[in-house]
Amino acid sequence: MNGAESLIRTLLAGGVEVCFTNPGTSEMHIVAALDRLPEMRCVLGLFEGVVTAASDGYARMAEKPACTLLHLGPGLANGVANLHNARRAQVPVVNLVGQHATYHLRHDTPLTSDIEGIARACSSWVRTSCAASEVSCDAADAIVAARTAPGRIATLIVPADVAWGEGGKVVEMAPLSRPPKPADQAIEQAAELLRSGQPTGILMSGEALYGRGLAAAGRIAAATGARLLAPYPFARMERGACAPKVDRINYVLEQAVEQLKEFRRLLLVGAAVPVSYFAAPDKSSRLVSSECTVHTLAKPGEDLVGALEGLAGTLSLGKMQPLAVEEVRPQVPAAEISLQGLATAVAALLPENAIVVDESMTSGRGMMVATQEGPPHDWLANTGGSIGIALPLAVGAAVACPDRRVLCLSADGSGMYTAQALWTMAREGLKVTTVIFANRTYGVLKREFSYLGVGDPGPRARDLFEIGRPDLDWVHLAKGMGVPGTRASSLESFAKTLKNGFDSEGPMLIEVPL
Amino acid sequence: MNGAESLIRTLLAGGVEVCFTNPGTSEMHIVAALDRLPEMRCVLGLFEGVVTAASDGYARMAEKPACTLLHLGPGLANGVANLHNARRAQVPVVNLVGQHATYHLRHDTPLTSDIEGIARACSSWVRTSCAASEVSCDAADAIVAARTAPGRIATLIVPADVAWGEGGKVVEMAPLSRPPKPADQAIEQAAELLRSGQPTGILMSGEALYGRGLAAAGRIAAATGARLLAPYPFARMERGACAPKVDRINYVLEQAVEQLKEFRRLLLVGAAVPVSYFAAPDKSSRLVSSECTVHTLAKPGEDLVGALEGLAGTLSLGKMQPLAVEEVRPQVPAAEISLQGLATAVAALLPENAIVVDESMTSGRGMMVATQEGPPHDWLANTGGSIGIALPLAVGAAVACPDRRVLCLSADGSGMYTAQALWTMAREGLKVTTVIFANRTYGVLKREFSYLGVGDPGPRARDLFEIGRPDLDWVHLAKGMGVPGTRASSLESFAKTLKNGFDSEGPMLIEVPL
Repeated sequence: MNGAESLIRTLLAGGVEVCFTNPGTSEMHIVAALDRLPEMRCVLGLFEGVVTAASDGYARMAEKPACTLLHLGPGLANGVANLHNARRAQVPVVNLVGQHATYHLRHDTPLTSDIEGIARACSSWVRTSCAASEVSCDAADAIVAARTAPGRIATLIVPADVAWGEGGKVVEMAPLSRPPKPADQAIEQAAELLRSGQPTGILMSGEALYGRGLAAAGRIAAATGARLLAPYPFARMERGACAPKVDRINYVLEQAVEQLKEFRRLLLVGAAVPVSYFAAPDKSSRLVSSECTVHTLAKPGEDLVGALEGLAGTLSLGKMQPLAVEEVRPQVPAAEISLQGLATAVAALLPENAIVVDESMTSGRGMMVATQEGPPHDWLANTGGSIGIALPLAVGAAVACPDRRVLCLSADGSGMYTAQALWTMAREGLKVTTVIFANRTYGVLKREFSYLGVGDPGPRARDLFEIGRPDLDWVHLAKGMGVPGTRASSLESFAKTLKNGFDSEGPMLIEVPL
Repeated sequence: MNGAESLIRTLLAGGVEVCFTNPGTSEMHIVAALDRLPEMRCVLGLFEGVVTAASDGYARMAEKPACTLLHLGPGLANGVANLHNARRAQVPVVNLVGQHATYHLRHDTPLTSDIEGIARACSSWVRTSCAASEVSCDAADAIVAARTAPGRIATLIVPADVAWGEGGKVVEMAPLSRPPKPADQAIEQAAELLRSGQPTGILMSGEALYGRGLAAAGRIAAATGARLLAPYPFARMERGACAPKVDRINYVLEQAVEQLKEFRRLLLVGAAVPVSYFAAPDKSSRLVSSECTVHTLAKPGEDLVGALEGLAGTLSLGKMQPLAVEEVRPQVPAAEISLQGLATAVAALLPENAIVVDESMTSGRGMMVATQEGPPHDWLANTGGSIGIALPLAVGAAVACPDRRVLCLSADGSGMYTAQALWTMAREGLKVTTVIFANRTYGVLKREFSYLGVGDPGPRARDLFEIGRPDLDWVHLAKGMGVPGTRASSLESFAKTLKNGFDSEGPMLIEVPL
């Protein structure tokens, strides 16, 4: 068995079942191994930013890593921005990056670059495999590294002669250890804090925002009156009917400060003390009141579900049920297109158990409120602030959950970063309905420019924010990549097309001119 | 004056006149400075891979750097693959990368990343500016670093509070030093080698391939019978009528070996000893015969033009003229579409003084031979092997040379990496005619798979090479970004559309299904 085959067999044995890829010459022996091992599903992206974001979306929903297969330093570099987002989402990803044959490196041929350097900037674990006999062990270590809580980016660099060399074997992976529980004292202190009667927020991240973690949090909130909060950048949130209500902290600094000013106690569950995305001259980055005491129940990497369940136990909640949201479906308003109207239409039509991928930026700020009382669904957000994640994140989520509908909400500026994802949606027949909010501007920059005290943008600055001239035509772009597309001219036509999208057997795109 | 204004004023004083950019919040004060200083032309790209390749294309033609303005680590990361190509092209580029305000970094907010780490992997010079009073000096140093022969990537990281801080000034840049001349001994030895009467190749790179350097090389070749050669990856070559003939070394290993086997002497002028792109099992990476003696006339970073002119002087060439190519225009063949026919049609119609940007990969291997006797033109190639450079490289070349026609030859797989460049072509009204060779496959991989001894690809491997299913429709893609597009159904329609493209006042795209 050659190194490449031992590599793929080890990944399969370790539960890695999907490979998002755009391979090149130095990865051909790994491609040959994939050719022989159909248990690994291969999904091609036309650009590596698609590949890495798809592996993020997959991991958020599958709760285990996919692997990527990338071509040398440039292939990895193209995926770094979305690996940055994945790192901030704290999801597990195993990157396989090809490298020249070890003896070829000294020639410094055109594609030679500092792969380890690039990898270190976006990974928690980096290794270059040194022999065909070792690559299985390396791959097993990479899976363990990726799955170490809360979820990490592990990058394994595979020289071509390691892939094609003989002597490969399949080693057994070290057992995955459960994340450590927080100390009893942290739980006791949290319980005391909740008993204080002071207005309290519970700010949660990672696996505290869905499943058993969220259920425990919901019971705690119901019993104590504490409010559940999520950071603006969160990876996945379970919401809608039957889920406890979680408020997302606002993106806009002043709104976030206003939202958080009531709290005198803040309990952190895998989350960090909230601060503003960016600094601004003469403004504080801190979002919570100076009178608020912050206590950490569990740090990232600790067992968040165990911490919340332990806390519920300490509080002796007994049969206390969470205060769950009740489903209320609005009507699609008969009106002109407006951001509020679009949000209401989405709330009216969202399928049960949908996955919403949201990078709608300034245009979609009302979406989460509008869908709060919708049917049960998951919401995936941009965690690292690097725009261009929504479309490929939707690809990964759809690959992980073929039986669920995916609604992808994207700003036009963000969408243009990784629009190639539409082609993968078409190729794989993914049930993703993409809504493009075509306001033809980097709206957030327009606002930030004035906010930062620079005054009103002049014509040359405005020119860098406005992405009309020429207008992007997303219906043509989608068609160019094999995805049927429609432009919504009214809320009624938007709703009708959205429903068609949810009913169709493959992807669809709706451009909404704003 | 704040830091941002002092930064832009220093760049302008240093001869940097174009800023290719996609800015974000942390760069708003720099955008405000650009707003006030119209002497700096700003060109927006919808993705940073467009921005960095455009700065490469600009530098190749303008022979001086543009600057880029990029948003934090992710913005830089998106541009790294094409900075890798620019580094291999040995062109000067000054990257400006925004950073959080220095005091904000400790919060580790979502967009925080290891910018210096990413920058080091693709730059020869990296610095983070520490104060508004220092950023002018930093920018001046960055220009000098970028312009140090043979041309380097310099990355200056500018924290937001450095940009908005007061106390900026404009310092005078250190004078640019000419690159050092090679030692007299190296020139003497080269002259002796050429007098040996042995079959000799002169392998040239950088500025040896155009202008005075190529003219001197042409005279040397005419006098000595030596053959002029270029590496497969070269940045810019002057060719066509009146230019000396330079043979490009073949990409395919066996063909390169065959091409070079006649030479017993090889003279290197800024080029490295030629080796194959990739290693293959049981194959040598060396391309030249073991009986060939290699001598370095000038290393990269030395004065290549001075070396060639010095060598011509040592050889006492007197009034010897270069053997220049005579112009011969073929007819457009009346035939079905074929790669040879397309190359002939391009040769028939190429405008005088055109710039050809070539990433046509397997489909365009006949293009250079066919256009050898065309009118005078420049040819720009992919230097680093990271695909996805052609369209934005054409943007940069067109910005540098508004009076020249740009013909952009791109494979479909490569083109999908940075197709967003079409939008910038439309916005800026650039005279770029793009030809997409739509063979719907990563053709090079199909070949390499078998070449590497892996056998014939099975269905799952083929699936990773074939980018049909669904077919990309480039006419729709172009239209979606504001560029008129046509699909050629015959050589006749290809020629007609190509001529229209060359006559039009803006960009045009022609898809050629193969």
